Amino acid sequence: MPERINHQWRLSARPETRVEKSHFTWTEQPAPEPAPGEVLVRNVYLSIDPTNRIWMREEASYLPPIALGAVMRGGTIGFVEQSCHPNFAPGDIVQGMLGWQDYAVTKGDGLNKLRKGVPLTAYLGVLGHIGITAYFGLLDIGQPKAGETLVVSAAAGAVGSLVGQIGKLLGLRVIGIAGSNEKCTWLTKDLGFDGAINYKTENVRNRLRELCPNGIDIDFENVGGQIMDDVLSLINLRARIVLCGLISTYNETKPQEGPRNIGNLLMKRGRMEGFVVLDYLPRAAEAMQALSGWLQQGKLQYRMEIVQGLENAPDAVNILFDGGNTGKLAVQLCPEPA
Amino acid sequence: MPERINHQWRLSARPETRVEKSHFTWTEQPAPEPAPGEVLVRNVYLSIDPTNRIWMREEASYLPPIALGAVMRGGTIGFVEQSCHPNFAPGDIVQGMLGWQDYAVTKGDGLNKLRKGVPLTAYLGVLGHIGITAYFGLLDIGQPKAGETLVVSAAAGAVGSLVGQIGKLLGLRVIGIAGSNEKCTWLTKDLGFDGAINYKTENVRNRLRELCPNGIDIDFENVGGQIMDDVLSLINLRARIVLCGLISTYNETKPQEGPRNIGNLLMKRGRMEGFVVLDYLPRAAEAMQALSGWLQQGKLQYRMEIVQGLENAPDAVNILFDGGNTGKLAVQLCPEPA
Repeated sequence: MPERINHQWRLSARPETRVEKSHFTWTEQPAPEPAPGEVLVRNVYLSIDPTNRIWMREEASYLPPIALGAVMRGGTIGFVEQSCHPNFAPGDIVQGMLGWQDYAVTKGDGLNKLRKGVPLTAYLGVLGHIGITAYFGLLDIGQPKAGETLVVSAAAGAVGSLVGQIGKLLGLRVIGIAGSNEKCTWLTKDLGFDGAINYKTENVRNRLRELCPNGIDIDFENVGGQIMDDVLSLINLRARIVLCGLISTYNETKPQEGPRNIGNLLMKRGRMEGFVVLDYLPRAAEAMQALSGWLQQGKLQYRMEIVQGLENAPDAVNILFDGGNTGKLAVQLCPEPA
Repeated sequence: MPERINHQWRLSARPETRVEKSHFTWTEQPAPEPAPGEVLVRNVYLSIDPTNRIWMREEASYLPPIALGAVMRGGTIGFVEQSCHPNFAPGDIVQGMLGWQDYAVTKGDGLNKLRKGVPLTAYLGVLGHIGITAYFGLLDIGQPKAGETLVVSAAAGAVGSLVGQIGKLLGLRVIGIAGSNEKCTWLTKDLGFDGAINYKTENVRNRLRELCPNGIDIDFENVGGQIMDDVLSLINLRARIVLCGLISTYNETKPQEGPRNIGNLLMKRGRMEGFVVLDYLPRAAEAMQALSGWLQQGKLQYRMEIVQGLENAPDAVNILFDGGNTGKLAVQLCPEPA
């Protein structure tokens, strides 16, 4: 049996702004052997998400910060190479949080076996945390009613593109905000959004006013900053602001200036509520049932952006902040098992 | 019968920052006569509230802006002088929104007859809109649970001082933020707050950290700005931010910088919700039952700050912004009826 080499990215310094390779240490050593009750997983895909950047900070967030020197945390999909655990067998496809490394040994806590016959990449997006986020964020926090107007920021991203499509399935008017004409065209032509705004070239507030003649009932907020303020300026009575992400702030060490139009939340009796997908994992089956149904009926589309090679993981994080991806971004570490 | 002279303050210009007498026109003319179906009211008290300043703006808020040239809007308590309306008789004590003037003729819409034998000033505060605001803001939006920690800003104000007392009655730990040592002493020594912070002389964030060792579960927000940010930095999981007022922003024409710690709302799955007392008027009886019960049992205290003379109404608004009042601020136009 050839020796298994495990490459790892370990966090060695906390980024002040952008993530750089210099914030990590690249290590290479033999993969560990599983002890009794453990399983050895080879990671195939590494999920790259805005929240990765949050975890690199010194401050606790909804999860503890990643310790300096530790393997960088990250969602993974891989397969079992060796098992000394009764619940797992070699070849099992498993989803977990095994981090930025080729191999990991685990006792199986938080490791989910995935059904084969579905493209693995689907589990990174619509049938994974992304789908659960979009589903419960919109339904549970957004409380949508047919005919209402939904605005989604980072709309061509993994979560945003799903939120908009689910919104359309629920009978909402859906306007997306994204960072290129190509993305906007994808939203309106392929995904059925009622309108899309290129925030890099258009006046967001004016365009929102045109595209949301009846105001905004739900803001599915992934960005924060000026875009959020523009949305807040047009909210209707009892609007819901689903605070899913604030990517415009994650690359900053100090808290950034907040929404100036918070007063509108008061005047319009709006509700802004933060949520984190981890809280909804106990209800994941609900979301999976709906999402896989829609997926099988061809009612949900998704796009993947795959970066090849674990060595490129730090740079991949910046693709999110540069708006370089459409749909779900992931790093592929090795070929999918046959 | 002596001629009745009606003085009025009419809004003649919209303040850019502070309210000045020059934004109003002072007029003097004979009081109008009631037509059939109408009633003539003499105003005794004029309620001075932070929201007066909002109404002077050009933008619509939760009510339309006051038109230039119109009598300044304001809550009033007065008595019926002449009635051509079947539901009202001379001498009836009535509460309404009859504006900054000595006399008003009205068809009686929105005019409530008050029970005699209760100090009229109570109806300006605990048994009026102030009480309804404090009650439903805390109970309905704040969803308090005994043992939780409540922080109240503008805590020595009309609403804040009630919110804190209700919080204590519900078994909360209550910390107030106010603008003088005298106010802070009133909160802790007389009203039973667990702690009070003088934001003009103390470091609010450090003091909150000391006084809220278990974090903050409810923020009853009357102020906004830096104080709100300090509170947001210490919220607990699933905290509720009751957005009742943002007095720190009302004297500004342009939207002010918003809360920088909005990211904490996301991380802690907090909920920030705006509310306006008008929405709760249909449920006012609920609040009145509870509040009058507590009042009769001596469990609620309130303070009044009465400015004499309608001519001083514009200056009185600035007392709120300067933190010059403890408890409910009102202008008295004439003696209470015997």
